[in-house]
Amino acid sequence: MRLSLIRSATSAVSRGKFARLTSSDLSFFEKTIGNEYVKTKEIDNYTMDWTRQMKGGSECVLLPSSTEQTSAIIKYCADKKIAVVVQGGNTGLVGGATPIHDEIILSTSRIKNHFHLEPSSGVLTLDSGFILADADNRLAEHGFMMPLDLGAKGSCQIGGCVAAGAGGIRLLKYGSLHSHLLGCTMVDGKGSILNLGGTLRKDNTSLHAAHLAIGSEGQLGVVTRVTMGVVPRPTSILSAMLAVSSYSHCLRLLSLARSKLGEILSSFELIDGDTMKCVERNLPLKNIFEGSHNFYVLVETHGSNADHDIEKLNGFVEEALGNELAEDGVAANSENERAHIWRLREESPLAAAKDGYIYKFDVSLPLEHFYRLTEETREKLKGRARVYCYGHLGDGNSHLNVTTDGEDEELKKTLSPFVYNWVVSHGGSISAEHGIGQLKRDYRSLGKSAAEGDLIRALKGVFDPHGILCPYKMIPSTQ
Amino acid sequence: MRLSLIRSATSAVSRGKFARLTSSDLSFFEKTIGNEYVKTKEIDNYTMDWTRQMKGGSECVLLPSSTEQTSAIIKYCADKKIAVVVQGGNTGLVGGATPIHDEIILSTSRIKNHFHLEPSSGVLTLDSGFILADADNRLAEHGFMMPLDLGAKGSCQIGGCVAAGAGGIRLLKYGSLHSHLLGCTMVDGKGSILNLGGTLRKDNTSLHAAHLAIGSEGQLGVVTRVTMGVVPRPTSILSAMLAVSSYSHCLRLLSLARSKLGEILSSFELIDGDTMKCVERNLPLKNIFEGSHNFYVLVETHGSNADHDIEKLNGFVEEALGNELAEDGVAANSENERAHIWRLREESPLAAAKDGYIYKFDVSLPLEHFYRLTEETREKLKGRARVYCYGHLGDGNSHLNVTTDGEDEELKKTLSPFVYNWVVSHGGSISAEHGIGQLKRDYRSLGKSAAEGDLIRALKGVFDPHGILCPYKMIPSTQ
Repeated sequence: MRLSLIRSATSAVSRGKFARLTSSDLSFFEKTIGNEYVKTKEIDNYTMDWTRQMKGGSECVLLPSSTEQTSAIIKYCADKKIAVVVQGGNTGLVGGATPIHDEIILSTSRIKNHFHLEPSSGVLTLDSGFILADADNRLAEHGFMMPLDLGAKGSCQIGGCVAAGAGGIRLLKYGSLHSHLLGCTMVDGKGSILNLGGTLRKDNTSLHAAHLAIGSEGQLGVVTRVTMGVVPRPTSILSAMLAVSSYSHCLRLLSLARSKLGEILSSFELIDGDTMKCVERNLPLKNIFEGSHNFYVLVETHGSNADHDIEKLNGFVEEALGNELAEDGVAANSENERAHIWRLREESPLAAAKDGYIYKFDVSLPLEHFYRLTEETREKLKGRARVYCYGHLGDGNSHLNVTTDGEDEELKKTLSPFVYNWVVSHGGSISAEHGIGQLKRDYRSLGKSAAEGDLIRALKGVFDPHGILCPYKMIPSTQ
Repeated sequence: MRLSLIRSATSAVSRGKFARLTSSDLSFFEKTIGNEYVKTKEIDNYTMDWTRQMKGGSECVLLPSSTEQTSAIIKYCADKKIAVVVQGGNTGLVGGATPIHDEIILSTSRIKNHFHLEPSSGVLTLDSGFILADADNRLAEHGFMMPLDLGAKGSCQIGGCVAAGAGGIRLLKYGSLHSHLLGCTMVDGKGSILNLGGTLRKDNTSLHAAHLAIGSEGQLGVVTRVTMGVVPRPTSILSAMLAVSSYSHCLRLLSLARSKLGEILSSFELIDGDTMKCVERNLPLKNIFEGSHNFYVLVETHGSNADHDIEKLNGFVEEALGNELAEDGVAANSENERAHIWRLREESPLAAAKDGYIYKFDVSLPLEHFYRLTEETREKLKGRARVYCYGHLGDGNSHLNVTTDGEDEELKKTLSPFVYNWVVSHGGSISAEHGIGQLKRDYRSLGKSAAEGDLIRALKGVFDPHGILCPYKMIPSTQ
């Protein structure tokens, strides 16, 4: 993958007035969590993000195994004014968990002891270091499922999912993490242990402050434990792909899917024609249809009765073809066919990454503007760059990708401001699910009011009065 | 209804150091929102809660019609240190919207101009004064539905629902308000207008501070506009009632309902045998079954295909009877039968209220303890009081009611501490959906850590530094 150098697109950030790490600090950490969990060598996998484009100058990684150890570390750092960046599975896409200067890295990877499912209520409490796929596999034994699913599931951690406000491919049916989070344990920037919310589906005895953890990017505290509702594992999962001639037909298909598939509709994904050609060109993967089409829509259902679900899906596909909303349609008849359909969608990012220098976007837009951004970007960059669009149409989340053969200095400077201003002026969000981190910090105030800015800085000040947690990112320092 | 006098069960609260209302204040309000919307006479419907058991000494009710008018009022009050209580439809059950001393009342009833549904995404933006049932009726024309439904739907307002963290009878399927809220406009305690979140299903560009409004009981700000996802209106709604011999069978039925009804299960309600007898004794309403049973379970489904739903419900009922989990079962074959079944559940509170002096509770409990509270309370009060249990079993939300023939001074003093301590020591919540308000303020810290207390006071301080909004209630004053 040849990502254009991200740092060069982001303004330089000067180091805050934090203390420099000393050997007596390291001694304290070693005494607190054990020598082997204070790493100072071979730490590139922590100091660099996983795309290996962002790198901080940290000299130390701490791997506590509990809330209490985390609290002791943060208390010490608050006292000494040592900056800390919190890292889960290091799968983020905006450098939120990657240090910028010499922040010490606190990894939650070893905080994974407690895992308790209450089967009668479907309430799960687990430590933040559990990997999403591992947690889901354990739930499968009891007929439950993690409501969220995303490409990074094999590496991302639950705490990181909460801190990132992870969305994913079945938000359409199951909702965001706000739908599921019941409580969490956070160690705030003073080292205090906050037990917020609880294990109950209904509890109106306090502010619902646990929800502030969602999307907080480690800037309010270290999430060490999460309690959430999990969902019954569907006994029937069906997938289909439709070939579509126009974006307006895609929207009408979405509406038809809502009415015909109702409560079992779990994904409604879009791949545009150029992206599909890019997949075929750059990957050993064939389109499932003969000939090319302008758009492809992937529909998935999750249900509890296969006969009913098949009847609903067939009814949807038949009406889509009968009304000529779709030009062609394929329902997956085997797990292999289902995997093939999903690979076309899930490997679209990979195909784009192999296509040249890449500029990646993750935006939300009102559906009437969703595809116009792609069209206008394509028009603007005609002959200069290739433009791909794929994403979660059902949620209004477009992953726009632009690729060029060689580096294009002007594009590096102008593309993000163009896209982000277009998005905000059309009522969209410049970050649907990836967050702000360091990659989008220059644009964090775009479209936001001064009053909101004051509010989030004040909230940051409550949780982290010394500003030591994940500095230089989404929320400006209060120091 | 002869409610035991609530005030006597709550400790007296001394008046805070707020300014007394002057005629020049009234002049300012009249100039700002118009003379007719500054009420100083015949305001009992505002100064008393709807059960007419709690009453404050307010001398003035303000009825602004917009966010801007609200902002002007609060800015003025912050400057003058005038205490304000925020009131929606005045349907609360804990006196959260009822003044205690002479707080002026800010009613959101006239803030109901803007109502916009985006049909392609199902996102609704509406002013906070819209009544829940009215909003739902408007959505029906477009095939959508408000996800929440509660007994007070004909009077309660959307802003009040958010501030109260309203739950209701179909939370089991649709989730809490956290599942649906995308953004809100709040006027904070300084009079600043905060536009939090937005209209998008996915937006990770800031802290998700809009979620703090849910369950905030007016103590952080005045919610003046709400943006939320609404849900497709089900085209098929089915109801059934089962007669059950034991609580453990009720739990096994819940598990069976989850597996057989899956994604269409929308309500799973419980009425115990004593409550049903109380209904038959005190109301002109007959049990739907011949003979009496220990428990009754009401099951409802919401779906998009009547044939499929009937097949699923029949499968569930047949297996419940076949396994002898249920002693008897009735599926509603008409809207009348469905209404009858629901009246048995929805009029249970009314039947209990007619049964004598009443002590009402609204608690959440882990399911294994859900009914033990009723049994132990019944045992403790044997020969002295009658104990009824009904509620949202699917959500772990029990409405425990105790009635006595005459006033019982000792019970007044001892019953709440007994119930609340029992609930907290069994991992429950002393307020599942009604909130803290003034009724439960003496118990607001029960089971909470000092760190959480410090946090919510600090959050209150960020939004309302002068402590003028809804004082004396859930969050202790920061002044």
